[in-house]
Amino acid sequence: MSSYHPLTEAEAIEIAKSVPGVFNADAKLVSREIGDGNLNLVFHVSDPATNASLILKQALPYAKVVGESWPLTLDRARIESEALILQEKLAPGLVPKVYVNDNVLALTVMEDLSDHVIMRRGLIEGGTYPKFAEDISDFLARTLFFTSDLGLNQQEKKGLVRSFVNPELCKITEDLIFDDPYTNSPNNSFDDHLKEDAQALWDDSDLHFEVALLREKFLTHAQALLHGDLHTGSIFITPESTKVIDPEFAFYGPIGFDIGAIFANLLMHYAAQEHWTPDEATRRDRRAYLTNTIRDIWAGFDRKFRELWNENGVDRISRTPGYQDDYMNRLLKDAFGFAGAKIVRRIVGLSHVADIDKIPDAAVRAKAQRLSLAIGTSLIKRNRNAASIEELIGIAESAVAASK
Amino acid sequence: MSSYHPLTEAEAIEIAKSVPGVFNADAKLVSREIGDGNLNLVFHVSDPATNASLILKQALPYAKVVGESWPLTLDRARIESEALILQEKLAPGLVPKVYVNDNVLALTVMEDLSDHVIMRRGLIEGGTYPKFAEDISDFLARTLFFTSDLGLNQQEKKGLVRSFVNPELCKITEDLIFDDPYTNSPNNSFDDHLKEDAQALWDDSDLHFEVALLREKFLTHAQALLHGDLHTGSIFITPESTKVIDPEFAFYGPIGFDIGAIFANLLMHYAAQEHWTPDEATRRDRRAYLTNTIRDIWAGFDRKFRELWNENGVDRISRTPGYQDDYMNRLLKDAFGFAGAKIVRRIVGLSHVADIDKIPDAAVRAKAQRLSLAIGTSLIKRNRNAASIEELIGIAESAVAASK
Repeated sequence: MSSYHPLTEAEAIEIAKSVPGVFNADAKLVSREIGDGNLNLVFHVSDPATNASLILKQALPYAKVVGESWPLTLDRARIESEALILQEKLAPGLVPKVYVNDNVLALTVMEDLSDHVIMRRGLIEGGTYPKFAEDISDFLARTLFFTSDLGLNQQEKKGLVRSFVNPELCKITEDLIFDDPYTNSPNNSFDDHLKEDAQALWDDSDLHFEVALLREKFLTHAQALLHGDLHTGSIFITPESTKVIDPEFAFYGPIGFDIGAIFANLLMHYAAQEHWTPDEATRRDRRAYLTNTIRDIWAGFDRKFRELWNENGVDRISRTPGYQDDYMNRLLKDAFGFAGAKIVRRIVGLSHVADIDKIPDAAVRAKAQRLSLAIGTSLIKRNRNAASIEELIGIAESAVAASK
Repeated sequence: MSSYHPLTEAEAIEIAKSVPGVFNADAKLVSREIGDGNLNLVFHVSDPATNASLILKQALPYAKVVGESWPLTLDRARIESEALILQEKLAPGLVPKVYVNDNVLALTVMEDLSDHVIMRRGLIEGGTYPKFAEDISDFLARTLFFTSDLGLNQQEKKGLVRSFVNPELCKITEDLIFDDPYTNSPNNSFDDHLKEDAQALWDDSDLHFEVALLREKFLTHAQALLHGDLHTGSIFITPESTKVIDPEFAFYGPIGFDIGAIFANLLMHYAAQEHWTPDEATRRDRRAYLTNTIRDIWAGFDRKFRELWNENGVDRISRTPGYQDDYMNRLLKDAFGFAGAKIVRRIVGLSHVADIDKIPDAAVRAKAQRLSLAIGTSLIKRNRNAASIEELIGIAESAVAASK
């Protein structure tokens, strides 16, 4: 098994057996391939006698999206497993544990999280997650602070920058988030009823200017090691537990990109509530739950990041009066902008979210899409002047009010 | 010669002989070691019969500054030779040609520029360089544009970012430029008569805030492959020719850092004119020559960078209306700030410039030092509001007027 090849189920079982301390020596293991086959093989290997289990995730040397197939580096498996190992060290308990990683096979053997649900699906099914704001603000504050020049010796940080150079996966983001949605690109994909809305995006030069600045930040600002794709489909959750998965897009980029990704996905779920919560009074509560979660995430992140900075700042310059306030305010501005960009691309770009696409009624879906676009474009246009998380919530609430 | 060791003169001659097309097969070569012995061995190998010659520069595994010695990576020789090779490709004729580079020996064999003079010395001796503004703005525009995301495919750029991660030499800059001068650090070194001026720097919290922001840019903004140490001691010059040397500090950083380095060194020479040009009318002319050179460098850089952008921009986003003007304005702001930081460190920090330190009269020297500090701190404080190169020249001229 020394050269790369897609594993068989028998091989998956053999590798799982070799992981110490999980299965009994005489266990009869069973394997199920549960990946969607587009990017990775995912084997669930378990012992029915003890219920012990493991996940083996193996990268495939291509990506399939909407019927197209293109080659995609296996190095993403190394990046994913190295990111998971580092994140576990920095934010213990908030990512799946990695047992084995094999860069030749592009394989990561990790903790099975089948008792969790993908957060996007959990939200769609009406779930509430009282521990989520606390957990995700922990994850953001700890992984971002301790990989930045504020919390990590600047020379060690440069070594991490080198390890996590990630050209191929960054290109996906650069094209699908910061380019295609703002022009008539063949990569775009949207409902026919959004044709005029898409045209409005393509014609809005103020918006293009802000997106060009955000894209430049994504390309050049090596602030911290990002997850890089932190939407609610990259989070396994229960009411008591949060596990962030799939950091194959990890690279050194602007901190606000990860924060904005979380906000964007909560806001699209917020925009889709007319379908998922048909009763108006209940819908108000559901929306308040979502905006409160956003408020709590920012408040928690802001407090924890500052605490880590005050207690673990690696140098005296970081304690320059006024610097921390200025830095945190810039993170908030960036979070506004990147949240907006992440919303817009999910409505008119290549890749969508189930919260909105699974709304069967075209008129209700169109309303959710337009509400999302209104929120997204407002966030992008506001970003450089943003000063408080309440402005983000205000933008969302005003957009709902205007859509009535 | 397969493992690293400092070369002997006999070995230097042997290596020089093996370079094709420079010396005759039966040439009797002579070698002189002309380095200062603090960082590198530099062998000048020549054939007295034909005057053909070469330079062999070999990194030593330590640095000696002011009697102290500390280990310093040999990888800087790789970075220097790779940077020279790339710069020659991007800005032909403006760096010494590299004939051989050997990463094991930390050796670069390159063009001999003994017919040029180090620009700092040339300026001190009263030289004028009518081609300099044109050449250095070419060098800046071409090397910076074509290594940025504007002029290089963003994925190839990420490969260069990885190759030019340069932790050890960046640390020298981070400490000596962005930290020590603003606190009572044992690394500082200044004349006793500057004690109060130094104290004023250490007490100025508005200044510290701006320096913290500039340092963050240096640490995080991977805009382009910088020379990284572009002072007038890193430039070989004649009235007809400019050659930028010694890019061992090369790394991906903010473009304004290289531009600011040039401005800073011309401004310190400007500040030192009371000694070097004692006659007042002649001094006015000399200062006008220096400010005109700065004006021409910025105008040339701005024009050429925009032309390269318009003709060679690698993607449509870079042509977003308003984006180029905004980008160029941000480069100017950064150049103000970094120029200021580079001036301040040369007056109170570890490493000084001959333009000022070689002024024998303490009172005249003190005046040049205070003038430099006034210009440097004003540039740092102005940086985020700067909008025109004329403001920089105005700051220098006002500081002279105020010093009378």
